[in-house]
Amino acid sequence: MQNGTLLAAVDLGSNSFRLEIGRQDNGHIQRVEYLKETVRLGGGLDEDHNLSLDAMQRGWDCLARFAERLGGFAHTQVRAVATQTLREANNREAFLHRGSEVLGHAIDLVSGPEEARLIYQGVAHLLPQSDERRLVIDIGGRSTELILGQQFDAQAVASYRVGSVAWSTQYFADGRFTANAFERAEVAAQAALEDAAEMFSSSHWELAYGASGTVGAVADILAGAGFERDRIGRDGLLWLKAQLLRAQSADRVRLDGLKEDRRPVIGGGISVLCAVFDLLRIDSLNVAQGALRQGVLYDMVQREHPESDLRVLTVQTLMQRFAVDVDQAARVARTAVDLYGQLRGPGAMGARELAWAAQLHEIGCIVSHVDAHRHGAYILDNTDAAGFSRDELAQLGTLVLGQRGKPRKLDVDMSDTTLALQLLCLRLAKALCHARRDPSTEGLSLRLSGQRFALQARPGWASEFPQSAYLLQEEAAAWNKTPWDLQLDLP
Amino acid sequence: MQNGTLLAAVDLGSNSFRLEIGRQDNGHIQRVEYLKETVRLGGGLDEDHNLSLDAMQRGWDCLARFAERLGGFAHTQVRAVATQTLREANNREAFLHRGSEVLGHAIDLVSGPEEARLIYQGVAHLLPQSDERRLVIDIGGRSTELILGQQFDAQAVASYRVGSVAWSTQYFADGRFTANAFERAEVAAQAALEDAAEMFSSSHWELAYGASGTVGAVADILAGAGFERDRIGRDGLLWLKAQLLRAQSADRVRLDGLKEDRRPVIGGGISVLCAVFDLLRIDSLNVAQGALRQGVLYDMVQREHPESDLRVLTVQTLMQRFAVDVDQAARVARTAVDLYGQLRGPGAMGARELAWAAQLHEIGCIVSHVDAHRHGAYILDNTDAAGFSRDELAQLGTLVLGQRGKPRKLDVDMSDTTLALQLLCLRLAKALCHARRDPSTEGLSLRLSGQRFALQARPGWASEFPQSAYLLQEEAAAWNKTPWDLQLDLP
Repeated sequence: MQNGTLLAAVDLGSNSFRLEIGRQDNGHIQRVEYLKETVRLGGGLDEDHNLSLDAMQRGWDCLARFAERLGGFAHTQVRAVATQTLREANNREAFLHRGSEVLGHAIDLVSGPEEARLIYQGVAHLLPQSDERRLVIDIGGRSTELILGQQFDAQAVASYRVGSVAWSTQYFADGRFTANAFERAEVAAQAALEDAAEMFSSSHWELAYGASGTVGAVADILAGAGFERDRIGRDGLLWLKAQLLRAQSADRVRLDGLKEDRRPVIGGGISVLCAVFDLLRIDSLNVAQGALRQGVLYDMVQREHPESDLRVLTVQTLMQRFAVDVDQAARVARTAVDLYGQLRGPGAMGARELAWAAQLHEIGCIVSHVDAHRHGAYILDNTDAAGFSRDELAQLGTLVLGQRGKPRKLDVDMSDTTLALQLLCLRLAKALCHARRDPSTEGLSLRLSGQRFALQARPGWASEFPQSAYLLQEEAAAWNKTPWDLQLDLP
Repeated sequence: MQNGTLLAAVDLGSNSFRLEIGRQDNGHIQRVEYLKETVRLGGGLDEDHNLSLDAMQRGWDCLARFAERLGGFAHTQVRAVATQTLREANNREAFLHRGSEVLGHAIDLVSGPEEARLIYQGVAHLLPQSDERRLVIDIGGRSTELILGQQFDAQAVASYRVGSVAWSTQYFADGRFTANAFERAEVAAQAALEDAAEMFSSSHWELAYGASGTVGAVADILAGAGFERDRIGRDGLLWLKAQLLRAQSADRVRLDGLKEDRRPVIGGGISVLCAVFDLLRIDSLNVAQGALRQGVLYDMVQREHPESDLRVLTVQTLMQRFAVDVDQAARVARTAVDLYGQLRGPGAMGARELAWAAQLHEIGCIVSHVDAHRHGAYILDNTDAAGFSRDELAQLGTLVLGQRGKPRKLDVDMSDTTLALQLLCLRLAKALCHARRDPSTEGLSLRLSGQRFALQARPGWASEFPQSAYLLQEEAAAWNKTPWDLQLDLP
């Protein structure tokens, strides 16, 4: 990536949407612009987990304003990520589809653990270099992320369905602050965070940091009241809760640092923060400057280089977790990428994703060899995979699903050239590696003219490898009734 | 099991339905009766994998005749298993539902690997004791099972979608035997069996055995023509293929040992047998007396005793494969079974299944902690689990799915008392073990009167374990709008 390149991150949070634009110089990112709007998308989820049209419209209107600022940005310069509210919304496709059109850039839904990892990247890159073992907390509108990390390495991540918007709606619906309401809200938050008690207990970290939303708002109020700046102590937190109880309702709270857009969700936010303090025995929380959006920007820089692209490591982790035959995975990946390179040139767009799909194409075997391709796609659609967005995983899942069966029966757009080429190369590689030995591909050439693939082998190849030849003939037949045609020349 | 107990196995195969009745004495089973009907259910599958009504009617008529013979048999004395054709049929529920009614006993769908394992049990129990390493082959109507085993231990099992009915339909549809048709059928069979080449190669076994269907028919023909009895050699197989080619069609084949009901599927069967001989380099195949139905009978005897119930071992294997926290699994299982025993007495019906579900309740975590209960149910619905039928796995899956969320939203019959009690005990155990430590259950009692559960704790319990008490209150609320009611007395 050239120095001076502008990068933009859009964070479609449950409480606010944010746009951060930065300039990349030698791996560092300098802020160019920061916009924030309180959209409160997460307040628009009804009981059946559908987003109201009103809430969607507020989101689209905000994205339209961001889009104006992003005029002239290429797709490679922008990444927009959606989090908990859209993870929960049943009608998210409707929102995301129009949202991407309005924004002019794709919107990636990220999983909770991936969100946590990105938050840590943002926090770590804006802190001074240090070897300290950190706990990072981000209380968002509908989810709370916890991370243990050291340097730039997030070592444990988790995401819980607890947040300021959700807790305010559920426990402070009438806006009244009573001791009883706080008690119920905190017990419920501790229950939802239960699993965290051991994993994130104080024996695992030296310093605790809080990022974004609720933590920032509380720190502002405490600073306004004369407490130490950029640090939340247990004393300050108790003082603040006492102020809310004395005011008795959100409308009547008078505090210097409290912004109007935070007022409706401060009760829920503080009850969750108190629960986290108690559960993890925190005495003091430092306010971090970095957050999800900065993590997204730094991740964009790292994805450029294979040696720093976390997805490379994640694919290895998944292969190990699901007990893949790594030799066969590597063999199929090499063969597939080689064929793909013959069609599009080495290192072409889509080659990296093809290699990952090939490395993971047998993960479904852990469930059963019967319909293993379906199980593999199911796993990719549902697993936590650091560095990947949900959409990227779904694309890998499509390739894994399409490794077997008739391509025309796949529920995908077969006029998408990249997808069709990836599928063909993966399937040809599987056929060529059928014996789980390195295939003899010398003199094997694959060409594309128009919609017609032509695969040619050296003389004598077919009689030397009759089983491979048979499988390739089956493959040629499989592409019938698709927009593509596979011609074989196997003398 | 008392000596002298009669046991019956029904095998709903793709070509034939079979009924085997035996008398159990000290772990041995003596044949009392054997019935076989050529139903050719597998010929009734159309292109969309639906069974024709005609084929289903043939099956039901046969089951009605078997049912007459089974008059007076208790459910514990009968096991009926369905195999490949019903694994493939989209409308299998319709067939199985009425079929079970007609037969008067449940019909279990078993997976391919489980079918292979049962075949091996049948073969091994009818062979003389020996330490030889065996290959067992069963070419059925629509599937072929391969097994490596020693003594009573099936060490590798696999099932392939290749069979006499399927191959006759596809490659000998017009009943004509040509060299070209045999060539195509054998290449296709080798392709479908490809994965077997290494796993079952001749370095892994000393003696090869063939069970049931095609192997028996071929052996009968060869014996009728003067070849050695109960052994198929490569020479005999080639001689037989030559006879078929000379006759040119199934109708015109004249061979002493060929039964009329075998005639329509002999071409497919022999082409698959030739492919297996070539692929696994077999020179000589011994005809085994035991088959699937005997395996089912011996399995019924073994399931009676935990120390010989294979399912106990399988649950351990699954826990290991899916990297379950075994301490927590054991803890939840102990607690759940203890509560269940308070309701129904120790060792009551359903306790064993509850323990298995508890041991497996976290297997979905390998995919993701988010919706882990759904992933667990998916795995159980799809995995190969030796000793379990598909229905048994589906029941475990229901419990695993029901460990979280509202019981009333589960798509099951909540008036089923066993299921409701299992679900409640699993959920209570999870709540009590929430801290992943052994719970304090002294003085905790669970009672049922009518549709009302009452859970009582010793005085002081709730203040000692406030989080457990909170989770139990949530649990009581979760049973709202079900036919059941959970009352808490937590002083």
